Amino acid sequence: MIIIISYYYKLGELIIMSGNTFGTIFRITTWGESHGRAVGVVVDGCPAGLALAAEDIQKELDRRKPGQSRASTARKEDDRVEILSGIFEGRTTGTPISLLVWNKDADSSAYDLLRNKPRPGHADYAYQMKYGLRDHRGGGRASARETVGRVAAGAVAKKLLSEAGITVAAYVSELGGIVAEIDPSTDLLLLQAQAETNAVRCPDVAAAERMLERLDQVRAEGDSLGGVVVIAATGVPAGLGEPVFDKLDADLAKALMSIGAVKAVEIGAGRECSGMQGSEMNDPLFLRDGKVDFERNHAGGILGGISTGAPIVCTISVKPTPSIAKQQSTVDLAIGEAVEIRVMGRHDPAIPPRIVPVAEAMVALVLADHLLRQRGARI
Amino acid sequence: MIIIISYYYKLGELIIMSGNTFGTIFRITTWGESHGRAVGVVVDGCPAGLALAAEDIQKELDRRKPGQSRASTARKEDDRVEILSGIFEGRTTGTPISLLVWNKDADSSAYDLLRNKPRPGHADYAYQMKYGLRDHRGGGRASARETVGRVAAGAVAKKLLSEAGITVAAYVSELGGIVAEIDPSTDLLLLQAQAETNAVRCPDVAAAERMLERLDQVRAEGDSLGGVVVIAATGVPAGLGEPVFDKLDADLAKALMSIGAVKAVEIGAGRECSGMQGSEMNDPLFLRDGKVDFERNHAGGILGGISTGAPIVCTISVKPTPSIAKQQSTVDLAIGEAVEIRVMGRHDPAIPPRIVPVAEAMVALVLADHLLRQRGARI
Amino acid sequence: MIIIISYYYKLGELIIMSGNTFGTIFRITTWGESHGRAVGVVVDGCPAGLALAAEDIQKELDRRKPGQSRASTARKEDDRVEILSGIFEGRTTGTPISLLVWNKDADSSAYDLLRNKPRPGHADYAYQMKYGLRDHRGGGRASARETVGRVAAGAVAKKLLSEAGITVAAYVSELGGIVAEIDPSTDLLLLQAQAETNAVRCPDVAAAERMLERLDQVRAEGDSLGGVVVIAATGVPAGLGEPVFDKLDADLAKALMSIGAVKAVEIGAGRECSGMQGSEMNDPLFLRDGKVDFERNHAGGILGGISTGAPIVCTISVKPTPSIAKQQSTVDLAIGEAVEIRVMGRHDPAIPPRIVPVAEAMVALVLADHLLRQRGARI
Amino acid sequence: MIIIISYYYKLGELIIMSGNTFGTIFRITTWGESHGRAVGVVVDGCPAGLALAAEDIQKELDRRKPGQSRASTARKEDDRVEILSGIFEGRTTGTPISLLVWNKDADSSAYDLLRNKPRPGHADYAYQMKYGLRDHRGGGRASARETVGRVAAGAVAKKLLSEAGITVAAYVSELGGIVAEIDPSTDLLLLQAQAETNAVRCPDVAAAERMLERLDQVRAEGDSLGGVVVIAATGVPAGLGEPVFDKLDADLAKALMSIGAVKAVEIGAGRECSGMQGSEMNDPLFLRDGKVDFERNHAGGILGGISTGAPIVCTISVKPTPSIAKQQSTVDLAIGEAVEIRVMGRHDPAIPPRIVPVAEAMVALVLADHLLRQRGARI
Repeated sequence: MIIIISYYYKLGELIIMSGNTFGTIFRITTWGESHGRAVGVVVDGCPAGLALAAEDIQKELDRRKPGQSRASTARKEDDRVEILSGIFEGRTTGTPISLLVWNKDADSSAYDLLRNKPRPGHADYAYQMKYGLRDHRGGGRASARETVGRVAAGAVAKKLLSEAGITVAAYVSELGGIVAEIDPSTDLLLLQAQAETNAVRCPDVAAAERMLERLDQVRAEGDSLGGVVVIAATGVPAGLGEPVFDKLDADLAKALMSIGAVKAVEIGAGRECSGMQGSEMNDPLFLRDGKVDFERNHAGGILGGISTGAPIVCTISVKPTPSIAKQQSTVDLAIGEAVEIRVMGRHDPAIPPRIVPVAEAMVALVLADHLLRQRGARI
Repeated sequence: MIIIISYYYKLGELIIMSGNTFGTIFRITTWGESHGRAVGVVVDGCPAGLALAAEDIQKELDRRKPGQSRASTARKEDDRVEILSGIFEGRTTGTPISLLVWNKDADSSAYDLLRNKPRPGHADYAYQMKYGLRDHRGGGRASARETVGRVAAGAVAKKLLSEAGITVAAYVSELGGIVAEIDPSTDLLLLQAQAETNAVRCPDVAAAERMLERLDQVRAEGDSLGGVVVIAATGVPAGLGEPVFDKLDADLAKALMSIGAVKAVEIGAGRECSGMQGSEMNDPLFLRDGKVDFERNHAGGILGGISTGAPIVCTISVKPTPSIAKQQSTVDLAIGEAVEIRVMGRHDPAIPPRIVPVAEAMVALVLADHLLRQRGARI
Repeated sequence: MIIIISYYYKLGELIIMSGNTFGTIFRITTWGESHGRAVGVVVDGCPAGLALAAEDIQKELDRRKPGQSRASTARKEDDRVEILSGIFEGRTTGTPISLLVWNKDADSSAYDLLRNKPRPGHADYAYQMKYGLRDHRGGGRASARETVGRVAAGAVAKKLLSEAGITVAAYVSELGGIVAEIDPSTDLLLLQAQAETNAVRCPDVAAAERMLERLDQVRAEGDSLGGVVVIAATGVPAGLGEPVFDKLDADLAKALMSIGAVKAVEIGAGRECSGMQGSEMNDPLFLRDGKVDFERNHAGGILGGISTGAPIVCTISVKPTPSIAKQQSTVDLAIGEAVEIRVMGRHDPAIPPRIVPVAEAMVALVLADHLLRQRGARI
Repeated sequence: MIIIISYYYKLGELIIMSGNTFGTIFRITTWGESHGRAVGVVVDGCPAGLALAAEDIQKELDRRKPGQSRASTARKEDDRVEILSGIFEGRTTGTPISLLVWNKDADSSAYDLLRNKPRPGHADYAYQMKYGLRDHRGGGRASARETVGRVAAGAVAKKLLSEAGITVAAYVSELGGIVAEIDPSTDLLLLQAQAETNAVRCPDVAAAERMLERLDQVRAEGDSLGGVVVIAATGVPAGLGEPVFDKLDADLAKALMSIGAVKAVEIGAGRECSGMQGSEMNDPLFLRDGKVDFERNHAGGILGGISTGAPIVCTISVKPTPSIAKQQSTVDLAIGEAVEIRVMGRHDPAIPPRIVPVAEAMVALVLADHLLRQRGARI
């Protein structure tokens, strides 16, 4: 009952990981494995003349990096960004911006034990079946480290959006079943500021404390927690989004679902709309100071795939960290036998707090791209 | 307090609806407005040698068309597909397949009243802000009629998938708050067959009856209902999906969110995963007859963005039909004043039953594209 | 010594003709075979608000259609364009423009004799090797009939360009070794008008007469002639073209080389530049009324892949019509034996006159696309 | 008479250099300016399992680098490639391959004098008009240094092609009007080996000597020479190329025309075909040992945009180096006055010898991409 794994393909059996580019006009291509020499991103399509400094990018990478608190792994990463091209005299030149972060602290010995034993809830088995061979050390491209490129590129997108008066911010609204109480009319930057005061990035400080207690508990059990993250954008002009396939919500759904561990994406009322009647769900229009506004925002700022001018609101559901110390069943692919494993090492007991800057980055990338696609008199 | 609407742009203010192509290798481009002469789609990238007849496409269009029951609008559409290219002696030639359906029964006078009064919950206002001008008759490209192209192209994708042993089917699992009881271990084609026996396309026949009663009720009130649709695919080989952005779940999320009225997309356990612990969420691997299998399918058949060989399971939440006879508040953009409107005409009181073939088509298109992207020895 | 031809592939041997889309923002997708039901094109990405009538397209199709003179085939084609979508009240709406021309006069019996005998100089053998099966009637997608879609889409591009003050025109400068004398300082529209007065589309009327005599001669011999076509564009603003790969000259080269029978593309001095010295080739800059101008135009209006504001000048070399009545050697693939063939039927004895509107269309498509890619204050 | 140059755009006047990605499946994105910190390329879409070492890439970069002989500039570049990702245990993993070369020896003071004085024959003026601002030091992205990324990526493509039995090689066939005598039936690798023995990369050693003398002459005059390069590929299977726009010759034309200084691209007989008759131009088919072959190769291995199995033959015309010491007229854009300039510094007196590895790289990239697009049983 031996399963044969062919590690190398003949040329006729070509296997490629080709989906490393995102965006249409504002395009990014990320590269790098978690235990390789470096990770990075090339941002192509950023307009010329945008003031951009390493610090603009570094501050977002600092928010992303682990080892910051009891909510995240103890792994130390320095993560200093290097800007290799595309900037001249402090401004973008319209040419590709190459951003690089060297890898450090990469002890891959822990992964050797699991080389042929796919971890449940991980991409290991799917990658093995797809590629035949894989860089098993630290997950390769499937590692959370790949998000360095997303966050670095997202920082450039955020800078561009800020010139257009657009703000993107995210926070944790639920963790381990504990639901935060958040007043949706609160100013977005205030919510974000409150969230950044605690390790779970939840604006409801009391709930945050209970979430942290719950995290300590599951960590002790060798288990992990899931949660919910809300990402909002204000100042988005009406008119962004390209029907019929590249709708703004469709591109946001792809962008957010492409982040590891995300299993659901909702826009506005999202899942709740299925139980509503039309008269409840529809947001009536009215005039505020001669301008069109909406009485509520069940639509989440998007109708027919196009932004309405109301705040964009997305919600993502994040599964619990799959790497857990608890014993789990799997299969040793090399010998074709059932085995039990424990995934030791330094892993976040919950992903939502760390996903916050990544989700902001992905939303910023989509908005920057659609802002450029909609170039015209109104912007 | 007059709002000025400029209907025509100068050349410097170029506005384009450019997102009409979907897919990478198996690519479709849809065209046509609801009250124009015809709607259609060009399918580019379908392999040569696939047996394909008009009937393969017609049967899916027949499932899509309205006027079939008390769950859908009384609008009559004949919708006969014409295959204009790409087929020779009953087989595809590998060249573009052009499919066309003529429009009929298009009385657009009802829309004239609403020309300057954006309907709440509709794309009207967003389109007006984006394009400055729009074909207001029947929603133009934002009309459900646009899905004719998706369903026709999806039928070609389904034919291709069936050659690879892949089945895609969808059904309504919830409508107006009534939740169907469905045994997930039931054979997918059986579930679909049960669903097709009733007008709400729900495999739980008893629940279907209650859904229909609820529909009669809200229709009488001039209101509408939302619901939930499950789309599953069986026989999908492990290995489909392209990290890191074109993950299979990311592309499914985009495909499904690009359908009008969809406000949430979930994969596998979806929204529920946020309340689970890692040990609950992770699907353990085991050997069944020497082959790798999973003890459960919370992952919905996708890990790390790549198919695992387990069934793909997606869930979408569909908002209630925005066109309702009940009085709603909006704004007359031409005179800049608040007005009340009622949206009369023939509209489905609930979209989920009619979205079923469209959602199947979108999932089939994603799977066909990724099947071709993963061409190699295993397929 | 039988060569086995497998007409149908297994699914694992997927063969697709996938390159049917051209352009980045102004994108076209053509479809249709010469002996199928119709040919057509979907133009996606044309800005809203452009005045466009069927006549704008028809006049270009009329220039393209055969049967007009002794320089072209006797085949009769009516070729009335139908606009199926994307126009509302006489203007483009920014949505896809679907254009269709029905096929007529398709007697394919003549092609049956050659089904297994690839014609020298034709795509027959290459298509057979690529696809395994092909629509042998009239060349399928490899037929000149495919250019109907290019010309129809090009007419839309020309209309857009005319709004920006850009003119594109082409003419025959050489045929069968007879070289026309043309003063390059002549107004472009005047050159075109002169060219349109004769059947070979050459502005040098005396040369045109000699070309026609030469054509009569080779037609009588059952042979054919090659030639040269010049395509120019005036009014193109400086700044179009996207380094480093999507340079304006690179995209023009691709566009023109994608036309059947074209074997060389030159920009400006083209082939001649290889014999020049830098001091001869470089075009000095000077000021004319306070504006930058060039003393000559060896660059053909493009430097570093970006337009300079000088006229764009492209030259293409067109091979002689491969379909000739003269006896030629080939192979019968079905029986694996050498055979002699004569290609009878109605074929142009020279392609250059008919390629003129096609080449104009391709250049217009590239310029329209780059004009939209360069959207900004200057246009 | 002052010309106002706005160096920075407002957001509404977005200017982007976005065409930095090439290829469909085998895709490369280059980045970096000549006087920035580094140049590099991300290769996405290379299949997994390909043996690849730094040496494979280094040997091509060594062929590209200047300072090798009296035919090229004295500028010293070390150009050691660093592989940052995509390789594991000596083989590609199917993930993006990030290649980087640090810049050195960048004294940009020489360029300051010319900051506002566009050099004739250079991209300076066109870039200024397009972007409003530019990195004037060394040409930025318009510098020949940008080709480092092309050559590095091309080396990966060549490695892939070699596994499929495909060889790509180029050589100089004409320089400063001196035409080499080359027997086209000579083995391609032998021709290349002969070419690599001399500084002008011409396989006709006697002609090479005359070319070098001519170079010495024009260098002394402060002038430069143009020339012709032939690029051939053998072992290319029949069937590569995607009608109707992504034809193999169309993509080759784009690839080669995208190289700086190239002004003409010819396939097979190229420019000569315009003077031929069909009976001369058409290549008759015959059987050689039961296989189809062609009696001659005027088609250059491509018919209908698809490879025929015969050698692919492309010819490019390369203009003389625009940077010359001779006095030239231009305009000072800052003060709006005519000026005379001399372009000093270290410049190749002829580009063709140095373009050889770049042209090989571009052809290899096109062939690798089309090989992957045509994946199936025959490859």
